[in-house]
Amino acid sequence: MSEHFADRLMAAVERTGGPVCVGLDPVVERLPAELREASAGEALAAFGQGVIESVADVAAAVKPQLACYERHGVAGLAAYEATVRAAREAGLLVVADAKRGDIGISAGHYAAGLLGPDAIGGGADALTVSPYLGPDTLEPFADAAVAHGAGLFVLVRTSNPGSDALQRLRLEDGREVCEAVADQVVELGDRCVGDSVYSAIGAVVGATHPEDAARLRRRMPRQVFLVPGYGAQGGGVADVLPCFNDDGRGALITASRSVIFAYEKRDASVGWRDAVRDAATAMRDELALGLRAGG
Amino acid sequence: MSEHFADRLMAAVERTGGPVCVGLDPVVERLPAELREASAGEALAAFGQGVIESVADVAAAVKPQLACYERHGVAGLAAYEATVRAAREAGLLVVADAKRGDIGISAGHYAAGLLGPDAIGGGADALTVSPYLGPDTLEPFADAAVAHGAGLFVLVRTSNPGSDALQRLRLEDGREVCEAVADQVVELGDRCVGDSVYSAIGAVVGATHPEDAARLRRRMPRQVFLVPGYGAQGGGVADVLPCFNDDGRGALITASRSVIFAYEKRDASVGWRDAVRDAATAMRDELALGLRAGG
Repeated sequence: MSEHFADRLMAAVERTGGPVCVGLDPVVERLPAELREASAGEALAAFGQGVIESVADVAAAVKPQLACYERHGVAGLAAYEATVRAAREAGLLVVADAKRGDIGISAGHYAAGLLGPDAIGGGADALTVSPYLGPDTLEPFADAAVAHGAGLFVLVRTSNPGSDALQRLRLEDGREVCEAVADQVVELGDRCVGDSVYSAIGAVVGATHPEDAARLRRRMPRQVFLVPGYGAQGGGVADVLPCFNDDGRGALITASRSVIFAYEKRDASVGWRDAVRDAATAMRDELALGLRAGG
Repeated sequence: MSEHFADRLMAAVERTGGPVCVGLDPVVERLPAELREASAGEALAAFGQGVIESVADVAAAVKPQLACYERHGVAGLAAYEATVRAAREAGLLVVADAKRGDIGISAGHYAAGLLGPDAIGGGADALTVSPYLGPDTLEPFADAAVAHGAGLFVLVRTSNPGSDALQRLRLEDGREVCEAVADQVVELGDRCVGDSVYSAIGAVVGATHPEDAARLRRRMPRQVFLVPGYGAQGGGVADVLPCFNDDGRGALITASRSVIFAYEKRDASVGWRDAVRDAATAMRDELALGLRAGG
């Protein structure tokens, strides 16, 4: 198997039948009752293990949200570590949703902590990073990613309601701020394009702005888009289609709460793992149908 | 003592004789030889304890860099926890240099993990956060800060060489991107101004751009500036003076490597703790002299 992140990701999407990424955003109060008797750290780890086993042949990747783990301190980070290991063992790619960003020397520390075989849990396959400090601060992350066959997803256009306030400000040169960041991502990513013609340096582009996604897709043809906002945040199949290239590739669609808490909307006779699996399978099939119809 | 972060900070600056913040950016290879025999986590914790004891009556605050701890995984985060506790016990304010930023629900998780009595180490006194996602994503951080008498420092103008690439882009309306962020910080901070007339919501403004600092000082009169870049990154006293208001207040100057690794440049007969203490004391006295001459 190729060592290049984008190539591995494309292979995983092909194998599982769709570009599904399950966001692991566990909060103790919403976990299945049977898990809530343990400590927070143990409950998070057990939940992660259960979700991973339930979606392993339906999803290409999981995306643990570091915030959900770090809110429980050391025990929470231990649960993150166990979750990364479990996902790797199950053959799922791991996108560490950390949104880190710091000056170069500190960026290097974050990269060392999260990517590569010596990193926590044996390392994530990709990492989300924030561009505000400037492209020089993304380079240590990119270096680590390339060294380890891992990837980055740089925040470009996020899914939250207030994302316009900075990302859509219009520059003197006609671009929006998010377009300027997109151009920086393209430049950063040019050096690490894989056999799939996609770069290891991708972009976060939310599902809640389909018209922006179409423009950003043209602007960043070789970037894989990590697309949050599907499901609980309101994005549907039609909203995410502009994130794909004409060949039906180039985007990884993330749903978190709508999948991992799917048991909340099911009859109590359905086990929580089955409910999670059903939700991930339905998402995969919806996306596959939409991509066939759209392509 | 007032519960307001800015009031507590001003009192600490007054008590210790200067606006000194010692950045805790430990890397194992540079620690004193006597500490390097322990595990990485133990070495980081012991070093933090030693620095804190050495600077407790000279510095107003310490600023642990989360990246340095998280690169060592669970053991590293345990060292961060021990360091926060040690600083609190020594009466030092703690600025968690985390540069977090995420959509609202995740921002709330990060805030819960880092601020307040139930947070790791008993909670930091302030937290650095990143503005790229938009002001709505800073609100959960601000809510937590206000609830716990803590503070925030929002990245506005950072000290790294490539910070111009995004932060100084010119907007159609004439502002630079960093000025637009500054305006958002002012708006966010208006609701939590303390008796000191400073807000609990401050700004990160690097020491490496003195001309920008002066403009940003006028733009954000009630924001405390957290000023990295002093020392190892090249900023000196003259560079940081524009970060202060005319009353000599309103900035907290951070030096990390030039203080915590000061023993590298001293004779081996000087103990490492004494070298650290001397460097912090010299910095405090330089700043006090500069502020008297400048004011």
